Amino acid sequence: MTATELKQRSLLGLKDLSEEEIMSILDRARYWEEQPEKVQPVIPGKFVANMFFENSTRTRFSFEVAEKRLGAEVLNFSAAVSSVQKGESIYDTVRTLESMGIDAGVIRLKPIGVLAELAEKIRIPLINAGDGNNEHPTQALLDLYTMQKQFGSLRGLTVSIVGDILHSRVARSNLYALKKFGANVRFCAPPNLEAAELDAPYVSFDEALRSDVVMMLRVQLERHEGGMIRSAEDYREHYGLTVERMAKVQPHAIVMHPAPINRGVEIDDELVEHPQSRIFTQMSNGVPVRMAVIERSVKG
Amino acid sequence: MTATELKQRSLLGLKDLSEEEIMSILDRARYWEEQPEKVQPVIPGKFVANMFFENSTRTRFSFEVAEKRLGAEVLNFSAAVSSVQKGESIYDTVRTLESMGIDAGVIRLKPIGVLAELAEKIRIPLINAGDGNNEHPTQALLDLYTMQKQFGSLRGLTVSIVGDILHSRVARSNLYALKKFGANVRFCAPPNLEAAELDAPYVSFDEALRSDVVMMLRVQLERHEGGMIRSAEDYREHYGLTVERMAKVQPHAIVMHPAPINRGVEIDDELVEHPQSRIFTQMSNGVPVRMAVIERSVKG
Amino acid sequence: MTATELKQRSLLGLKDLSEEEIMSILDRARYWEEQPEKVQPVIPGKFVANMFFENSTRTRFSFEVAEKRLGAEVLNFSAAVSSVQKGESIYDTVRTLESMGIDAGVIRLKPIGVLAELAEKIRIPLINAGDGNNEHPTQALLDLYTMQKQFGSLRGLTVSIVGDILHSRVARSNLYALKKFGANVRFCAPPNLEAAELDAPYVSFDEALRSDVVMMLRVQLERHEGGMIRSAEDYREHYGLTVERMAKVQPHAIVMHPAPINRGVEIDDELVEHPQSRIFTQMSNGVPVRMAVIERSVKG
Repeated sequence: MTATELKQRSLLGLKDLSEEEIMSILDRARYWEEQPEKVQPVIPGKFVANMFFENSTRTRFSFEVAEKRLGAEVLNFSAAVSSVQKGESIYDTVRTLESMGIDAGVIRLKPIGVLAELAEKIRIPLINAGDGNNEHPTQALLDLYTMQKQFGSLRGLTVSIVGDILHSRVARSNLYALKKFGANVRFCAPPNLEAAELDAPYVSFDEALRSDVVMMLRVQLERHEGGMIRSAEDYREHYGLTVERMAKVQPHAIVMHPAPINRGVEIDDELVEHPQSRIFTQMSNGVPVRMAVIERSVKG
Repeated sequence: MTATELKQRSLLGLKDLSEEEIMSILDRARYWEEQPEKVQPVIPGKFVANMFFENSTRTRFSFEVAEKRLGAEVLNFSAAVSSVQKGESIYDTVRTLESMGIDAGVIRLKPIGVLAELAEKIRIPLINAGDGNNEHPTQALLDLYTMQKQFGSLRGLTVSIVGDILHSRVARSNLYALKKFGANVRFCAPPNLEAAELDAPYVSFDEALRSDVVMMLRVQLERHEGGMIRSAEDYREHYGLTVERMAKVQPHAIVMHPAPINRGVEIDDELVEHPQSRIFTQMSNGVPVRMAVIERSVKG
Repeated sequence: MTATELKQRSLLGLKDLSEEEIMSILDRARYWEEQPEKVQPVIPGKFVANMFFENSTRTRFSFEVAEKRLGAEVLNFSAAVSSVQKGESIYDTVRTLESMGIDAGVIRLKPIGVLAELAEKIRIPLINAGDGNNEHPTQALLDLYTMQKQFGSLRGLTVSIVGDILHSRVARSNLYALKKFGANVRFCAPPNLEAAELDAPYVSFDEALRSDVVMMLRVQLERHEGGMIRSAEDYREHYGLTVERMAKVQPHAIVMHPAPINRGVEIDDELVEHPQSRIFTQMSNGVPVRMAVIERSVKG
């Protein structure tokens, strides 16, 4: 496989993907969503390895369903959390799977910069399923797909992303992609969780609620031991989508969340399946979107 | 899927299942057991998720073999023991898999009442693979199947269930089902491990040994930290099926156990594969029984 | 299955395998390596269970890829490290899978002697995927395959195995097999990690470097808490393949390692993908070799 082809088949992030490439994935996702047959073996005999060096339930499952619906052979690898954290051993594991004849690798990992290094060295397409604080492109693609289905077009949409922007790969991938399509992205975050390098304005929560899309981020309580967040209660009071705040969301607007959800922290329990929530719809949409991404990476 | 259809395809317990429904599952299990071909893809393209929120080896494998023999696509989920114990997160996980297009879910969980709640909210068939102290219907079905194969009929059989009745979902499911078929169920338990609400007489161990079926329960030593059981040795002395006690079991009778076994506690090592033991036969029978249950839940 | 047939289909070790049997596996591996189609369902409907009672990533994956390329149904079992360590519970688990109709079991375990006991009692072919300090036959087969591809023949080859011989199942299986083919096997080990009972001379590291094959063993740092190895640095200084030592390896020779690698301990980082290293080639070769082994165990 040539370097160019390898790059075209990989999906490391949305930052460097063209509007056309993104649209082509979303179009193909729509095709897959509309198929009446659940399994269509378009990539028989292709081996896809899901390599999760960071815990995940829903993303891994979403990929696995996508791969099996395409007729691929699936290998699942979940690393013992502590033992394979160093970039070096991640490389050895991925290189091992490559040596065994895997056709593509879906990979989630924590350490910053390791995925980019891997992509330089590994000769099979890699699909980013969550890369530290950097990007989470398939999440943003399914988010775009969900918005597109809701509003017809992304152009001119006002999307407010609320929460821990600093550590959020979901915020980054959404920002990069949405801007390509002319959406108006704003952030709302506790001051110590803003990301200065990202090109989007910060607005008040009240202002964020006046959007077409209110995208709540997961509070990663486990990552904030250092006191960046005082408590779940305090977070909810200032940055949680409460029932009271929901009343200010416009009737045509939707609420999104990448999940898993901390109910009662960043979003109130009663709102998770609110008529304007698209949280479980997002999860449904993840499957055809990932089918399109996997197909693109290994189809002959 | 209508609520009625959903109910007919689910298997939450045997308490509310009719004699006819149970017999129809056992008949179909016999059909599957007699098939010469191991894999018959009768439900191709159907996705079944095994969601085990409580550890299990054999039950999960038994379901997986059953699902694969039917040609289903299988997803396995084993929750990190501590992280997904609350009913709320179990709901989110199951709802997530439903959103991804799963056709049926096999579920094992610990917290009492959560499965019943899930069944109210989730719109795909759920199969109970062990529900706290409540029911374990596929275990009882394979037990019934094993007895039926041994004795031809369940009517009039004397079945004594020995051990920790209080915490046993196996005892409950067997009791509910066996009584429907006119079997004579008796319990034998340490006084502090009796379950007052269940409708069966308690007998002495000597009396229990005079049965057609002596069903030993696993001592869940890990659940008895509070001192309900003094020690493994003490338990064996009073409630273990020892070689001495086995001599009192009638020649036509059989010994059963849902496994996994604590050898040398509730049953002596030498008895596990005794000619009158059906312990591994039960495991063999679990596969066709679960094929019947899975087929019933997803077949077109 | 008769006892003879069972023995012929199992692969417990190379010690008692004839030269012809080994060659027949290597020939078949070559056949599989040359197939253009990745998946050829030659054993459809056969269930193979990978039962790893000791952690493994690459060996388990290698078997899984091999099994899926042959069209088998695959079940994966990884035991919680502590809970299933006793021979008794390993037996119950394997017997359980046998009862469920598994056609062959791939098994890795730590306790010495348990595999041999299992093979006496279990009535399905068992394939040793790592047996304590005893044998690791598929690793040695892929090593032989790699040497054979490199040098055409094994006869007369000088193979030096360097490291913790005492605890190495890889060293043992390679020794047994290589000697059958007239190779000249030498060991190089720290004095306290020699295995007196094995029939091979010990040589200095300098002498070991003058070989056709320099096979480095993994230092199992986790097994040497008792102080058998002073430190990773000390080990590297005396028994590591450093860049300096690599300069003494002859140009036609190759370097091997069973992996996983401790980079910078038994082998320097820069040497892992050195032109004379066959480490990732070994991993590639593992797949067709294991296809041959699995096929031999279950094909009709």
